[in-house]
Amino acid sequence: MMLSALDLARRIESGALSPRDVVDLCAKGIALRESEIGAFAAFDLEAARRNAEPTLAQAPLRGLPVGIKDIYDTVDFPTAYGSPVYAGHRPKSDAAMVMLVRRAGGLVLGKTISTEFASLQPAVTRNPHNRAHTPGGSSSGSAAAVAAGMVPIALGSQTGGSVIRPAAFCGVAGYKPSFRMLPTVGMKCFSWSLDTVGVFAAGVADVAFAAAAISARDLRVDGRDPAPPTIALVRTPQWSQASAEMQRAVELAASKAQAAGARVTELALPALFDEAMQAHGTVQDYEAYRALAYELDFHRDRMGPILRQQLEKAATITPEVYDDGRRITRRARQAFVGLMGDTTVILTPSAPGTAPHGLGSTGSPMFNRLWTLLGPPCINVPGLADSAGLPLGIQVVGRFARDKIALEAALFVERALAR
Amino acid sequence: MMLSALDLARRIESGALSPRDVVDLCAKGIALRESEIGAFAAFDLEAARRNAEPTLAQAPLRGLPVGIKDIYDTVDFPTAYGSPVYAGHRPKSDAAMVMLVRRAGGLVLGKTISTEFASLQPAVTRNPHNRAHTPGGSSSGSAAAVAAGMVPIALGSQTGGSVIRPAAFCGVAGYKPSFRMLPTVGMKCFSWSLDTVGVFAAGVADVAFAAAAISARDLRVDGRDPAPPTIALVRTPQWSQASAEMQRAVELAASKAQAAGARVTELALPALFDEAMQAHGTVQDYEAYRALAYELDFHRDRMGPILRQQLEKAATITPEVYDDGRRITRRARQAFVGLMGDTTVILTPSAPGTAPHGLGSTGSPMFNRLWTLLGPPCINVPGLADSAGLPLGIQVVGRFARDKIALEAALFVERALAR
Repeated sequence: MMLSALDLARRIESGALSPRDVVDLCAKGIALRESEIGAFAAFDLEAARRNAEPTLAQAPLRGLPVGIKDIYDTVDFPTAYGSPVYAGHRPKSDAAMVMLVRRAGGLVLGKTISTEFASLQPAVTRNPHNRAHTPGGSSSGSAAAVAAGMVPIALGSQTGGSVIRPAAFCGVAGYKPSFRMLPTVGMKCFSWSLDTVGVFAAGVADVAFAAAAISARDLRVDGRDPAPPTIALVRTPQWSQASAEMQRAVELAASKAQAAGARVTELALPALFDEAMQAHGTVQDYEAYRALAYELDFHRDRMGPILRQQLEKAATITPEVYDDGRRITRRARQAFVGLMGDTTVILTPSAPGTAPHGLGSTGSPMFNRLWTLLGPPCINVPGLADSAGLPLGIQVVGRFARDKIALEAALFVERALAR
Repeated sequence: MMLSALDLARRIESGALSPRDVVDLCAKGIALRESEIGAFAAFDLEAARRNAEPTLAQAPLRGLPVGIKDIYDTVDFPTAYGSPVYAGHRPKSDAAMVMLVRRAGGLVLGKTISTEFASLQPAVTRNPHNRAHTPGGSSSGSAAAVAAGMVPIALGSQTGGSVIRPAAFCGVAGYKPSFRMLPTVGMKCFSWSLDTVGVFAAGVADVAFAAAAISARDLRVDGRDPAPPTIALVRTPQWSQASAEMQRAVELAASKAQAAGARVTELALPALFDEAMQAHGTVQDYEAYRALAYELDFHRDRMGPILRQQLEKAATITPEVYDDGRRITRRARQAFVGLMGDTTVILTPSAPGTAPHGLGSTGSPMFNRLWTLLGPPCINVPGLADSAGLPLGIQVVGRFARDKIALEAALFVERALAR
């Protein structure tokens, strides 16, 4: 059903598939599912076929098609940042991440739906596992497009929980790299202290392959069996707000990882991290009121109500309160290094539960905001589901700038869950 | 000759001048000097007059006209980022800093000349003190426009030495706030770890007034006499590359500040800061190769040779070397806190000397790059000149996030120099 990036890359390497064949596979997925899911703001299969030259098979991304969240500037496609304010907008340049995809030999297949300016204002995309449910947001289309087998790789972005949450709700691997490892240049800004690039693919090894190829970094985890990690189960102060099945899923992941050889401990977060969780909203909203100043002051009436009210409220945050939030952030980032100690990764929920019913909300980022603020690599590990078949995502959080180790641990957990 | 922002604001407050009168003063300065200096990429005096409503006199910026470096997006003016690649480009939104100027009740008078993408590739602007000399760069037009009395306030940006150096060469106050205090959203990115907003005005109290109004922060220094600071004279390892007159100027500033009551010590930079100075180039160029990927890959032939060669060379920097540079940066930023100790500010050259002859180079950022990387507030203090009348700039470097204290110390030095 899903298109595994790593599997496709290997079949291209062996000559069993050509880059053009993979475009045809995407075309098939799109023909089957796009009309009911609505994952794309725009796509161009003919252009992808034209650009799918056989020589791309030698490039790091092997000519694989990539969906780009419509929060990134593209010259080839209209870029509306999910907002009516920018309907039909044609940027003059490609975002840095789009160029990294091109330089790595990927094909830009199309633009995936973003919520308005990557906020909590919901968009039209539906969850491929049940159309009556949200796919999560703000990277709604990227998560759904991968989940529905329409594209093997998609780019997203996370300011609160916009990569890990939709990945969890759609049952795909989502990877938020360490803060500023990948460039946000040419991505519509919501919060310059928090906006982070993200990558979606079918499984953990797929997302690691894609990120390695795009970043030209040693991030692949498919070469050998991952070593058993030291895992800290972190329930967080929000634990009681997670559904019973999510609580069981995280505990199951911990016990399966332990059975597979991991050392599993439990870790409670000091009070400073509670403050940091609060600081996230302050920092994010103070910056969003400035980053989106033009849109708010000149096009307020065309914005969705959830976003508009958030920005109007943000106008009251003073520089002093913001500076306090930044100081707490700096202290928490430093404390996080000590907190991790010898721990390889933290295991914690990716979201409060499965995807909520309806399209009026993209769900809560309460299990993501702290980690976005702290900046370490986060991976959503797919593989579990509730009795109705809706995915439950397990979040693996690594140490800052130790992304490959975090991805290896996530692969270990993914395999343990599959046993 | 120069237009003092603070003096004009006070005269507007008292009713002696209207915002429209100040536009007329700018018009007079432009009529006198612009044709020989070339500070503006575009300006619109009629629009400024139309927008100069009397009610602006109540706003924080008092309706003062502001020049915006052409590296910031503006809806009202073409925005070419100093490059033929973007000739005639019309952005869809205003940069965050432009909106902060509007929200504070400033008038956007026009766009000032930037070097190409704020790089070392020189532009056409001439030094108002001697047209045969460079005004410095990359904020060439902003520094020259203030120096020539064409506008009381101008915005610039600094990635290496693009605010402090042109301020020094043009004999105006330049202020680079603490890193990320002001938003770079909607500013063309060169290096996301280094790009910093900057402000130009006639003197230190003027630039503090402008920054306070734009940021809604307590940064004004005109209320009372500044307390005598503790000053550390830092010669840096580049001292021998400063001209004899620059060396004398910095020593003179130190002795005059001491005579005025400051405590003056000397501080040698540990070897780590030498490494950090090297890391600046690595971090900057690695990021520029990605931030300007679209322009390099698709419009290479339209770029200036200095910039093109810099970016082509940057392609060879590996992620490992970049990561090393970022690690050194983090260590140096932490070490800087300890280095400063009880020191209020550092006193050091703003540039190797006066503005070089000719327009083929904007001069060297060798006395700026370390401080840009470390992120503390930097102020160019004007007031000294060589025997030919070319300005010599003294740089005041404060502690991170202690911007008001740094501005107060800069005012203290400025007043000591005037005695």
